Amino acid sequence: MSHVETEIREQPEALARLFTGGRAKAEEIAGLIRARAPRYVVIAARGSSDNAARYAQYLFGAHNRLPVSLATPSLYTIYGTGPSLAGALVIGVSQSGRSPDIVAVLEAGRRDGSLTVAITNEPGSPLAQAADQVLPLAAGVERAVAATKTYSASLGALAMLSAALEGDPARFEELARVPGLVQAAIDANTALADKVARYRYAEQFVVVGRGFNYSTAFEVALKMKETSYLVAEPYSPADLLHGPVAMIERGFPALVIAPSGRVLADLASFVGTLEERHAEVVAISDDASLLARATVGLALPPSVPEWLSPIVAVVPGQLWAVALARTRGLDPDRPRGLTKVTETL
Amino acid sequence: MSHVETEIREQPEALARLFTGGRAKAEEIAGLIRARAPRYVVIAARGSSDNAARYAQYLFGAHNRLPVSLATPSLYTIYGTGPSLAGALVIGVSQSGRSPDIVAVLEAGRRDGSLTVAITNEPGSPLAQAADQVLPLAAGVERAVAATKTYSASLGALAMLSAALEGDPARFEELARVPGLVQAAIDANTALADKVARYRYAEQFVVVGRGFNYSTAFEVALKMKETSYLVAEPYSPADLLHGPVAMIERGFPALVIAPSGRVLADLASFVGTLEERHAEVVAISDDASLLARATVGLALPPSVPEWLSPIVAVVPGQLWAVALARTRGLDPDRPRGLTKVTETL
Repeated sequence: MSHVETEIREQPEALARLFTGGRAKAEEIAGLIRARAPRYVVIAARGSSDNAARYAQYLFGAHNRLPVSLATPSLYTIYGTGPSLAGALVIGVSQSGRSPDIVAVLEAGRRDGSLTVAITNEPGSPLAQAADQVLPLAAGVERAVAATKTYSASLGALAMLSAALEGDPARFEELARVPGLVQAAIDANTALADKVARYRYAEQFVVVGRGFNYSTAFEVALKMKETSYLVAEPYSPADLLHGPVAMIERGFPALVIAPSGRVLADLASFVGTLEERHAEVVAISDDASLLARATVGLALPPSVPEWLSPIVAVVPGQLWAVALARTRGLDPDRPRGLTKVTETL
Repeated sequence: MSHVETEIREQPEALARLFTGGRAKAEEIAGLIRARAPRYVVIAARGSSDNAARYAQYLFGAHNRLPVSLATPSLYTIYGTGPSLAGALVIGVSQSGRSPDIVAVLEAGRRDGSLTVAITNEPGSPLAQAADQVLPLAAGVERAVAATKTYSASLGALAMLSAALEGDPARFEELARVPGLVQAAIDANTALADKVARYRYAEQFVVVGRGFNYSTAFEVALKMKETSYLVAEPYSPADLLHGPVAMIERGFPALVIAPSGRVLADLASFVGTLEERHAEVVAISDDASLLARATVGLALPPSVPEWLSPIVAVVPGQLWAVALARTRGLDPDRPRGLTKVTETL
C-alpha cells in the first residue's frame, strides 16, 4: 500500500489523538483569544492548509461571528508594505511550518501586537517559533507528498478551537464522533477501481462545493491535480453561474460535494443545471436522491453535523483521487516535480 | 464588430470619465471612511467584480494598510449566521447591482452599524439602495455578457478610492495617465489572430499572476472560460508550487501576466520552472527579456505604476480571449448559457 493510502487510513486514529490530547491547549488558546476580543481573524496558509483556512472562514463566521480574511503573504515578503494586523487574531496553518511567507505574516502580526497562533505538525518549526501559541496537529510523520491526515487534522484543530471559543460542551461531544464517522467514510469507499475507470482519460473536472464544503471542493481538486495531473477546478455553484458555467458542455465531468445540510438544496438545484447541459455528475453525498441522480455516487455516512462535514466529506475525495491516479498508471506517492516541503516567498 | 470588442475599445474614454466625474464623490466617501477609521474592509462581489475585489486586497493592503476580506455571502443568505461586520468598511461591487447575495452582505453591514459603499454601474439598483454611499462606475451600458469596461472601471473606482483615502495628489496624477496607457495597450494588441491560432485546439490553460496582478490572472482566466469554453485556471506561482504544478507537462500552455514591478523577478523565475517542464509560455509584459523568452508575447506599454498595472495589463488579456473565441469559430458576444445579470443566493 502507498504512503498516501496508509495515511488516509490513519485519519480516524490521528483525529482521536488530536481531540483527546489537544483539547486543553485549544481551551487555553481560546481563553487568550477571548481576553483579546479580536474583531477579525487573518489566516496565512498555502496549498492544502489554505483549503483548511477556507473552512475556517465558514466555521468562525457561522459559529463565532468572526470574519476571516485569508492573508496576502506577498505584501509582507515582496512588497514590504502589508496591512496592519492590529486588533486581529493571526493564525498560520502549515504542516511543515517552514514556508517563509507564512512565517512572515505571523511575524508581522506580532509586530502589530496581535495574538498569533501556529497550527502545525512540527512544533519545533520556524512557524511555531514565530507564534505566541502553538496548537500541534499531532498527526504523526506524513510521508506522502499529497497531504491527507495533516489536512483533516488541520480542520479538526480549527474545529476544536472554534468549539473551545464558543465554550459549548455539546460541540465537543459532536467532535468526539468524528473519528468514527471518518472510519465509516473510509469503509464505504474502499473499492473505487470500478467506479473510477470511466475517467481514465478525462482531462478536466470541475469540483463543486458550497458553504462549509467550499473548502472540500478546493482540497479534492488539489488532490486530483497533485496525483493525477488533470485540470480540476474548484467552484461554488454561485461563482460558476457568474460566468465559468459556459465551459460546461455535454460529457464534462463535475464532482459535486453535497453532504446533508443548509446548502444541499442549492447543490441539488445546481445538479439540475449540470443535467440540462448533459454534464456528467460524480456525487459525494449521504442524500439518497442525489446519489441516485449521479453517474457515480460516493456514499457518506448519515447524520454528520454540518460544521464537521468537511472532515468526513473529504475522505471519499482523497480515496477517489488515489484511485484515479492508480487507474491512470501513476504512483500517487510520487507527484511529478513536487517535494514534501515547499518554501515560497 | 462585436459588443465586447466595442466595449474593450471604450475603456480609455470610460476611465477618463470616471476619474474626472467621480473624484469628488470618491473624496467625500474617503472622508467618511477616515471619520469611521475601520480596522478592516469586507468586499462582497461575484464573477468579474470578485476579481476587482482581489485587486483591492493588494491595493488597500499596500497603500492604506487596511486588510481586506472577501465576504462569504452564503453565511448571510443561506446559513443566516454571518460574522459580525461591526467596525468594518463594507463594500459591494456589482455591475448590475442586482445579485441578492451581494445586497444581503451590505444589509448585514448596515445592521451592524458599518459604513457601506456600493460600487456599481447601476446607481438605481437594489445594491445602491442598500448602501450608505454609492460610487457609480459611469461606464455606460454594457451589452456584452462578458464584462470588460465595467471590470476596468471597477478597478479604477477602487484605485480612486484608495488614492482619496491616502490623500496624495501624486496618486491622482498617476491615475490621470491610465486612460492613455489603456489606449496604448489596445493599440499594441489589435492584431492577435496570427498569435492566437496556435491555441485553436488547446483544451486547458493556467493563467499566472501575483501581487496586484493576481486579480488579472483571475479575470483573464474568466474571460477565456466565458468566451472560449476552455478550462483556464488562475494561480499565483506560490500556490502552483504548493501542489498543482504537478499537472504541468510538456506543451501545457501557461499565460503569464508579468508587468514590471516588485513581483516581476518572481514571475521570471517561475517562467524558468515552466521552461524546465517544457511548458509553453504566453506572456503579457513590458519586459523585453521576458517577452523574448515566451512562445507568444503580448506587449504592454512601459512605465505603468505598479498599483495601476492591473487596469492596463488586463487589456491584452481581454483582446486575447476574444481572439481565441474567434479562432475557434465562437461568437464572443454569446457565451453558452450565460445572461448579463446573474442573480444568486
